Amino acid sequence: MSLREEALELHRTHQGKLSVVSKVSVKNARDLSLAYSPGVAEPCKEIYQQTDRVYEYTSKGNLVAVVSDGTAVLGLGNIGPEAAMPVMEGKAVLFKQFAGVDAVPICLNTTEVDRIVETVKLLEPTFGGINLEDIAAPACFAIEERLKKEMNIPVFHDDQHGTAIVTLAGLINALKVVGKSMNEIRVVANGAGAAGIAIIKLLLSMGVRHVVMCDTKGAIYEGRTEGMNPIKELIARNTNHERIAGTLEEVLAGSDVFIGVSVGGAVTQDMVRSMNRDPIIFAMANPDPEILPDDALKAGAKVVGTGRSDFPNQVNNVLAFPGIFRGALDTRASSINEEMKIAAAYAIANLIDDSELASDYVIPRPFDPRVAPSVAAAVAKAAMDSGVARIQVNPDDVANRTRVLSAIE
Amino acid sequence: MSLREEALELHRTHQGKLSVVSKVSVKNARDLSLAYSPGVAEPCKEIYQQTDRVYEYTSKGNLVAVVSDGTAVLGLGNIGPEAAMPVMEGKAVLFKQFAGVDAVPICLNTTEVDRIVETVKLLEPTFGGINLEDIAAPACFAIEERLKKEMNIPVFHDDQHGTAIVTLAGLINALKVVGKSMNEIRVVANGAGAAGIAIIKLLLSMGVRHVVMCDTKGAIYEGRTEGMNPIKELIARNTNHERIAGTLEEVLAGSDVFIGVSVGGAVTQDMVRSMNRDPIIFAMANPDPEILPDDALKAGAKVVGTGRSDFPNQVNNVLAFPGIFRGALDTRASSINEEMKIAAAYAIANLIDDSELASDYVIPRPFDPRVAPSVAAAVAKAAMDSGVARIQVNPDDVANRTRVLSAIE
Repeated sequence: MSLREEALELHRTHQGKLSVVSKVSVKNARDLSLAYSPGVAEPCKEIYQQTDRVYEYTSKGNLVAVVSDGTAVLGLGNIGPEAAMPVMEGKAVLFKQFAGVDAVPICLNTTEVDRIVETVKLLEPTFGGINLEDIAAPACFAIEERLKKEMNIPVFHDDQHGTAIVTLAGLINALKVVGKSMNEIRVVANGAGAAGIAIIKLLLSMGVRHVVMCDTKGAIYEGRTEGMNPIKELIARNTNHERIAGTLEEVLAGSDVFIGVSVGGAVTQDMVRSMNRDPIIFAMANPDPEILPDDALKAGAKVVGTGRSDFPNQVNNVLAFPGIFRGALDTRASSINEEMKIAAAYAIANLIDDSELASDYVIPRPFDPRVAPSVAAAVAKAAMDSGVARIQVNPDDVANRTRVLSAIE
Repeated sequence: MSLREEALELHRTHQGKLSVVSKVSVKNARDLSLAYSPGVAEPCKEIYQQTDRVYEYTSKGNLVAVVSDGTAVLGLGNIGPEAAMPVMEGKAVLFKQFAGVDAVPICLNTTEVDRIVETVKLLEPTFGGINLEDIAAPACFAIEERLKKEMNIPVFHDDQHGTAIVTLAGLINALKVVGKSMNEIRVVANGAGAAGIAIIKLLLSMGVRHVVMCDTKGAIYEGRTEGMNPIKELIARNTNHERIAGTLEEVLAGSDVFIGVSVGGAVTQDMVRSMNRDPIIFAMANPDPEILPDDALKAGAKVVGTGRSDFPNQVNNVLAFPGIFRGALDTRASSINEEMKIAAAYAIANLIDDSELASDYVIPRPFDPRVAPSVAAAVAKAAMDSGVARIQVNPDDVANRTRVLSAIE
């Protein structure tokens, strides 16, 4: 059977991938009187007296809404909210399997920023966190920014920040391999979409000084007039201080790191050869990378990562989001901030110790069972240290709990 | 341990009552490639081509949102959306345990009709049905009416219709016990809230001709000026054609059936004595009925039902909603209409055969495992017969499936 047929059968057999189950038994009148009327009035009254007790007596504290409008689903584009459901269910499956987070797909029948924001805000009593997913740029930026400001639970757009965090983890280790440091490298990023911009932002907050971002018109710089928008203006102001203009090919020459979230084949072997010694290449276009790892390595690249599971150094968001939400939920964090994202990146990177570190092993594998517990503990600690945690916990306990809840072996 | 302590402990121990689990295993890269990227793109593409396939490939077809704004929770009143969560989770537990329906609490941070309607409508791609719960009158009427009109999935306000259906089931059997018929009885209902009005509407559609509804000001009749509102005006136009005025005590004299969804102690023994021969009393105020069963029986009542589990003939919604949604979901019904509600009532009533029928056994017990399968099959059949089913199924298959999915023994 082909992958296509097998995937269709898997989804059809079970009529989707998610099930909601009861953690309590209700088989007789006594059970009913505790889980439902009249006993259920007791936790209701407790929460009415002190709203925060909703975290003690209900599922809210472990419940995440995976919210999409279906406008940018995988590589399929704007296929609508119903067709987005299988992906959102899949995401919910990963939340559960990797970190014991209960997640529910919420596919919305609108693509208007205001209506999405309004709806998600009204869901706040029910959920402990919001994971935005597969929402097209630039709407995704406005939606995330407003929800972060107007909600008191963590809001996280995984397409942006999940990818950024795992890329950063890979870069931390790749720099060790080549013996370079964050503040000296020259980075060129191609693709000014959600993920590209989030990666650049995170690199800037890590102290990277030389960044040039390219879109289909070439380098983005302050003063460029063609094909700009408010997000790119912001990028222009915060990167490329030398105001370098030119094509991707031109600006890549002499750089140390290429970060591609663009289209297959955007980078040639000659372009790799034009880079500084020991080039680092993250070619994350999917399914066809900007350059195939073998081609890049033959042209002198030292470290190559892609989005694909059949090559080494896969940049896979599943390394980040389950542990990040686990850590945020377990501390009842009011947001997922830069400190928590950076802590997650280091937690991922540090799982590979110096003796194992190699060109083809700068990112742990997706099913490495150490990842989610380490990320969760680091994120919990960062939440407490940065002041967004509403309860104090022992990070080791968070790691242990994640280990117990995870179904990855 | 008291019920209070035990209920609190139950809710605290599990941190709520619901868990979202995966129906598919994701333990290695192969699993991941089927349940998530890249294989998940295949069901996405199928649904994009034909939206209805969302029922085949996702959980939508078995997923119900239990929606509340927390304004009328149990007997606790307007305690807010967070404090409503334990009840909505409890409802979801019952959906699952009795009929295998996956249900998710959606407690909304608003009490405005327009915003609730807008939000629930936007959730349509995700859910196969909407169960409105514990929303105060009169907002609940407007919300339900608009959602029924503007959505293509079943919308059901259980506080109204669940109670009405089970009351009707009890009344069908009680009339057999006393040897009276629907079109001759005189019914007095006390309490013009959501449940009371729904019961009256259902009785009218069953051919009951003589109905007088009372509120705290006494009988509602056309031309009454005090304490009216648009809903009561509607009631006045469709009931009490003799325009009887007076207190509950006055209008109850000479009637055959009392239906109470009001307050404890509203009916005295003398009032029961003033009724026609073999009075039927449904005294559903909770936890204190309008009159205690023993008192009513001593005063000559022939059949007495209450909302309480410690008396015979409990009017418990759990007899209705799980099977109703099972039947509606399995036929992909676009709504839950009067035909389906009446079919559900007869399915419940008919489980008690003439040899078992007795004054103290006109309603099956909540944990009778025959109920949900019978209701589901009858509702599925009525959905097909009335033209709201989008697929044709064999009602016996629906019953069998419900039996398999139910966790009631």
